Amino acid sequence: MSYYSHHLFFCTNQRHDGRSCCTQHGAQKMRDYLKKKVKTEGLAGAGGIRINTAGCLDRCEMGPVIVVYPEAVWYTYVDTEDLDEILERHLIGGEPVERLLVK
Amino acid sequence: MSYYSHHLFFCTNQRHDGRSCCTQHGAQKMRDYLKKKVKTEGLAGAGGIRINTAGCLDRCEMGPVIVVYPEAVWYTYVDTEDLDEILERHLIGGEPVERLLVK
Repeated sequence: MSYYSHHLFFCTNQRHDGRSCCTQHGAQKMRDYLKKKVKTEGLAGAGGIRINTAGCLDRCEMGPVIVVYPEAVWYTYVDTEDLDEILERHLIGGEPVERLLVK
Repeated sequence: MSYYSHHLFFCTNQRHDGRSCCTQHGAQKMRDYLKKKVKTEGLAGAGGIRINTAGCLDRCEMGPVIVVYPEAVWYTYVDTEDLDEILERHLIGGEPVERLLVK
């Protein structure tokens, strides 16, 4: 059994060569938003949901990206409403959010 | 199917309050070592192995820690020989390294 029921990683990589990267899309801020929300709703911790930053997940062209394990589902997102939907429908409801999937 | 066959996250969190953390155990250097080795051996990339840094995985008392997804297997390690064993036996051989498991 997975230590966290859902373990999310936000790519927060910062490139320094001018090429596009997740951080330019506000990845750190978006991670902070979701992390706070998960805590506030009492969903964080062992057996629950964990929200992490990560280095470059190497899917920059699809960015900004998130990966959710152990189910290995990849998402992109634009705003906090997208994150809310991932939280409500996938992390709580158990159903991936089709419109945001990165395959 | 998982985009990466094995996706490893090294906790490289740095605490600033004096408490123990993975970074004090050389986590960043150890991640660099394994990342380079996976690349050199031609195992990196989509369908292969991805080595990442991550923020605090919140298992500090067991640190330094790694988590491998999608199988959700947690490890601790002391030196590069431990990492070599995780690479050879688990990531290539498909068999978790019992002696390094964090449960």
